[in-house]
Amino acid sequence: MILVDGLAGESISARDRGFAYGDGVFRTFKVMRGKPVLWQRQYAKLAHDCHALGIDCPPAQTLERDLAQIDTPDCIIKIVITRGDSARGYAMPSAVAVRRVVIAGAWPAHAADNNSKGIAARVCRLRYSSQPALAGIKHLNRLENVLARAEWNDADIAEGLMCDANANVIGGTMSNVFIEKQGALQTPDLRACGVSGVMRELVIELAKAHAVPVVVTAISLDQLLAADAVFVVNSVIGLWPVIQLDRMKWPQSKITMQMQQWIDDAQDA
Amino acid sequence: MILVDGLAGESISARDRGFAYGDGVFRTFKVMRGKPVLWQRQYAKLAHDCHALGIDCPPAQTLERDLAQIDTPDCIIKIVITRGDSARGYAMPSAVAVRRVVIAGAWPAHAADNNSKGIAARVCRLRYSSQPALAGIKHLNRLENVLARAEWNDADIAEGLMCDANANVIGGTMSNVFIEKQGALQTPDLRACGVSGVMRELVIELAKAHAVPVVVTAISLDQLLAADAVFVVNSVIGLWPVIQLDRMKWPQSKITMQMQQWIDDAQDA
Repeated sequence: MILVDGLAGESISARDRGFAYGDGVFRTFKVMRGKPVLWQRQYAKLAHDCHALGIDCPPAQTLERDLAQIDTPDCIIKIVITRGDSARGYAMPSAVAVRRVVIAGAWPAHAADNNSKGIAARVCRLRYSSQPALAGIKHLNRLENVLARAEWNDADIAEGLMCDANANVIGGTMSNVFIEKQGALQTPDLRACGVSGVMRELVIELAKAHAVPVVVTAISLDQLLAADAVFVVNSVIGLWPVIQLDRMKWPQSKITMQMQQWIDDAQDA
Repeated sequence: MILVDGLAGESISARDRGFAYGDGVFRTFKVMRGKPVLWQRQYAKLAHDCHALGIDCPPAQTLERDLAQIDTPDCIIKIVITRGDSARGYAMPSAVAVRRVVIAGAWPAHAADNNSKGIAARVCRLRYSSQPALAGIKHLNRLENVLARAEWNDADIAEGLMCDANANVIGGTMSNVFIEKQGALQTPDLRACGVSGVMRELVIELAKAHAVPVVVTAISLDQLLAADAVFVVNSVIGLWPVIQLDRMKWPQSKITMQMQQWIDDAQDA
């Protein structure tokens, strides 16, 4: 089911600036038993990202009315907000009519035991470019992620890690990454590239709440390979332990399993 | 008038990957008296850019049939090619149905005497990011251009120049740039960022054909400011001399005016 500006439909205007330039933002998250999971956080991120691009984010109530129309109690929701239609040309239209698209989809085909057994991942060749003006924002310019994800076809590889030009790890193609070292967590600094997800933010807060040290910092690929444990997170998959990265292997970690439980508790709250 | 996969319409699928990720490419050019200007070159660039992203470009004949349906003999055409629809997720769909969208619009409102009198331009604050995997390609991830173009509202400023992180000039928000120095032309190297336009390619060829030295090289902003003349080009505007850049002013240049004539001749051919 798709809602375009609140109305059921399958299409958007061919003059939409999301289509023309990727001029918009999005979020993807779970709905469980009719309830959008961590909705306040998702909306806050959406509003933040809209603001960063100078797009007027629709009010939360407007999106909540859309979500209430979705006819499947358990699904994955993607909300896309674009600057709306305009004539040809990069200049922003003076009369803006922001567009909102809500797409409900099935739960992903990811093997359910990725959460418990962990996944194999790879390191992508494609390097994220550095763009402080867009870093952290979940905008619609995602060709880097598309090209990185196209590097492999092996169904046994569940995620690819992306580095910047300096071989610092930034995140997965669709996830944020954490490493564990001597009982503390680290996650990459996203001030120059990458996407800052709701689940990343939640994990940082949960670590602090449970007195697990956590720092946001540059993490080189070598540092990641020397970590005691690695995991990736996003709002759809939750937390997947990375138990293999190319030829490197890790055992399951106690902190990782605890974090999974804390996430489950927070999502049920 | 808009044609989506050859059929008149105003909308595209909300599942199009151009909308979701900017997963596609485009070109914009003039149609004069029913004839797409420099069409062979436009198609070659379109095919090249599709290939770079692993998208099967529709055959030239298919697009020519679309163009023949356009009901205005003088217009601006934008052709967008996307990877087509897919379910959620960055992974490319296995059964691809590439989408083509042909949008006909009115001639731009740019003052017609920009070509003869020249324009005032500015230097944008936003810096292009460096991404060799996408550099030169006219893809749909154009937020950098949108943000750069949003930096000014003054109608007297016709274009903004964009630099990379090293303060090398890359191009205008919607154009390629050339400088003239001691009778020779230079244009920025686009191996790390920027868009390689048909008009840029034509200007390089025309310079060579008329024994005007031309080099593709890194051009710092300081070098540009020290140039004897500066001009910007694209397939819609043709060639605009830059006679003012912030506080710097240049007189009209003989080579620039000659190049304009050579472009006109090539477009009529």
